[in-house]
Amino acid sequence: MGSIAIEEIKKLEPTAEIIRWTVPGIKDIPGAAKRMIDTYDCDGLIVLGWVGREFVDKLSYVAYSVGIMFVGILTGKPIIDVTVHEDESDDPKELKKIALDRTKKHARNLIYLLKDPTYLTKWAGRGLRQGYPDVGPINKY
Amino acid sequence: MGSIAIEEIKKLEPTAEIIRWTVPGIKDIPGAAKRMIDTYDCDGLIVLGWVGREFVDKLSYVAYSVGIMFVGILTGKPIIDVTVHEDESDDPKELKKIALDRTKKHARNLIYLLKDPTYLTKWAGRGLRQGYPDVGPINKY
Amino acid sequence: MGSIAIEEIKKLEPTAEIIRWTVPGIKDIPGAAKRMIDTYDCDGLIVLGWVGREFVDKLSYVAYSVGIMFVGILTGKPIIDVTVHEDESDDPKELKKIALDRTKKHARNLIYLLKDPTYLTKWAGRGLRQGYPDVGPINKY
Amino acid sequence: MGSIAIEEIKKLEPTAEIIRWTVPGIKDIPGAAKRMIDTYDCDGLIVLGWVGREFVDKLSYVAYSVGIMFVGILTGKPIIDVTVHEDESDDPKELKKIALDRTKKHARNLIYLLKDPTYLTKWAGRGLRQGYPDVGPINKY
Amino acid sequence: MGSIAIEEIKKLEPTAEIIRWTVPGIKDIPGAAKRMIDTYDCDGLIVLGWVGREFVDKLSYVAYSVGIMFVGILTGKPIIDVTVHEDESDDPKELKKIALDRTKKHARNLIYLLKDPTYLTKWAGRGLRQGYPDVGPINKY
Repeated sequence: MGSIAIEEIKKLEPTAEIIRWTVPGIKDIPGAAKRMIDTYDCDGLIVLGWVGREFVDKLSYVAYSVGIMFVGILTGKPIIDVTVHEDESDDPKELKKIALDRTKKHARNLIYLLKDPTYLTKWAGRGLRQGYPDVGPINKY
Repeated sequence: MGSIAIEEIKKLEPTAEIIRWTVPGIKDIPGAAKRMIDTYDCDGLIVLGWVGREFVDKLSYVAYSVGIMFVGILTGKPIIDVTVHEDESDDPKELKKIALDRTKKHARNLIYLLKDPTYLTKWAGRGLRQGYPDVGPINKY
Repeated sequence: MGSIAIEEIKKLEPTAEIIRWTVPGIKDIPGAAKRMIDTYDCDGLIVLGWVGREFVDKLSYVAYSVGIMFVGILTGKPIIDVTVHEDESDDPKELKKIALDRTKKHARNLIYLLKDPTYLTKWAGRGLRQGYPDVGPINKY
Repeated sequence: MGSIAIEEIKKLEPTAEIIRWTVPGIKDIPGAAKRMIDTYDCDGLIVLGWVGREFVDKLSYVAYSVGIMFVGILTGKPIIDVTVHEDESDDPKELKKIALDRTKKHARNLIYLLKDPTYLTKWAGRGLRQGYPDVGPINKY
Repeated sequence: MGSIAIEEIKKLEPTAEIIRWTVPGIKDIPGAAKRMIDTYDCDGLIVLGWVGREFVDKLSYVAYSVGIMFVGILTGKPIIDVTVHEDESDDPKELKKIALDRTKKHARNLIYLLKDPTYLTKWAGRGLRQGYPDVGPINKY
């Protein structure tokens, strides 16, 4: 997922300086995100994580999410977090497709957010999904 | 939901200066709320989010809620958070109705809170609901 | 519940200066509590909330509780939080009784805590309940 | 449970200065712990709580636990938290036994931690339990 | 688990200075981790915990995880957390095997992270597991 995100960012921002770190599990991400911001003063982060299907994995996901939220609040840097949950599909091919689609769309979202936080407004309420086909706007009802 | 909130705020406060940002998902809201307050020193915020029906969406909702709470505590700014949960109804029309009603009422609540934090006291314990019809006061029993 | 709490506090502390704010929902309480302490430097707070019976209401309750805890830790002010959960009874009369009893007892607890944090020690382990009849001390076994 | 803890601490540290506060419920503990440390600059704390058997009690337990963790992190003081859960046994006598055993063992643990944080190493991985008989070391397998 | 972790670290970093503390339960770890960093200014930490099979143990695990995340964010130090959950297997021999494998692999991960946060990138997306056999890369699909 990391190389896909980098590729996508390079497409939109060919001159972007990208730093990639890898940690063992999702609970290692918030601390590493904070250290990366402290070290490189990055403009923004995209963090990519894989979440297992067990109940304990979901609890780790909550703690991880609270951690990511704190780093974003404390540092003032946009952090887009992309997680793929193993139980989103029993078919590994489908899971891979979800992971790639979500990673690409969120990599673009990070660039949009960094350029202009009002940019995504035109897509609000359109039922856009990352990892799945879009569900369409609620206004059609 | 964003345009509905803006419309409603404009009705009560025609001269209010309103800034609208859009982020990809609910977990991006707390960080963005903090950045918006840091950038514009807004008097208050209304944040609008759509929450899926899966268990993981609910866990994201908890983390998001903790994040929103922190931003409110750290910045001292009123942040009204409006979420609509996809499993509140299986009927998209009903869901849209809930979203609109809740957004309007909470947009008004934000203005009331900003003008006078004692304003809502006369409605306390009346069983007022946002998104649904009011349930009435417990004092009738 | 607000007026009951005020009445009860006035009984124990007739000269107490009481400020009452009202917010739309429980997740608005921690931020408002922080702002009230910042504005008035209150000696202590009693916060009163109504929690729905849905799973999402319970998740909001967790986030709210974490928020209240933070405000208490950060400000150093005693904050007694009183919540009534709609699923504590299917009978609205019973629910009202629970709400009143819990509010009164916790209003008194706030005063006791403010006067002397050792005051409640004589009641520790006695199985006192707020909202329900006391269950008695475990020492009787 | 408070008097048991005090007794046990006095046995190991006859000259220890002990301050005891009592609060209405477990969610009042983190704030009170912070205030006690701010007031008395205690070397360490043991906090004792009783947790109900309902789902909402368990949610309060999570929030309480996060709160305790924060106080420990922010103050740098060891805080041993002892909770007894009403659903650990349907037999009040058994529950009392659990509460007493856990309180005594954790009171001792507090003293050990304060004297020397390496002290408990010799008991690590031995399957020691507080409130229940020890389960034995995993190394026997 | 502590001695296994030390052994493994010594293999990769024979001159590493290692400090080992032991606390009664997982909820005591975040505070102790913070105190250890404050006292010794350690470069990194590996924390090892055993989690019971009850629902309340899982709730303690969430609170613990949030606590660990905060310590990592606040101190800027890498903290690898290793937990073994009693319900990962009913066979104590299997459980021991999981604990040893996970501890060894994460001890190595800590060293890698400390030496170079980009080091693990070559293993990203390979489906590596700690405690279990690796599941292989998603790219094979």
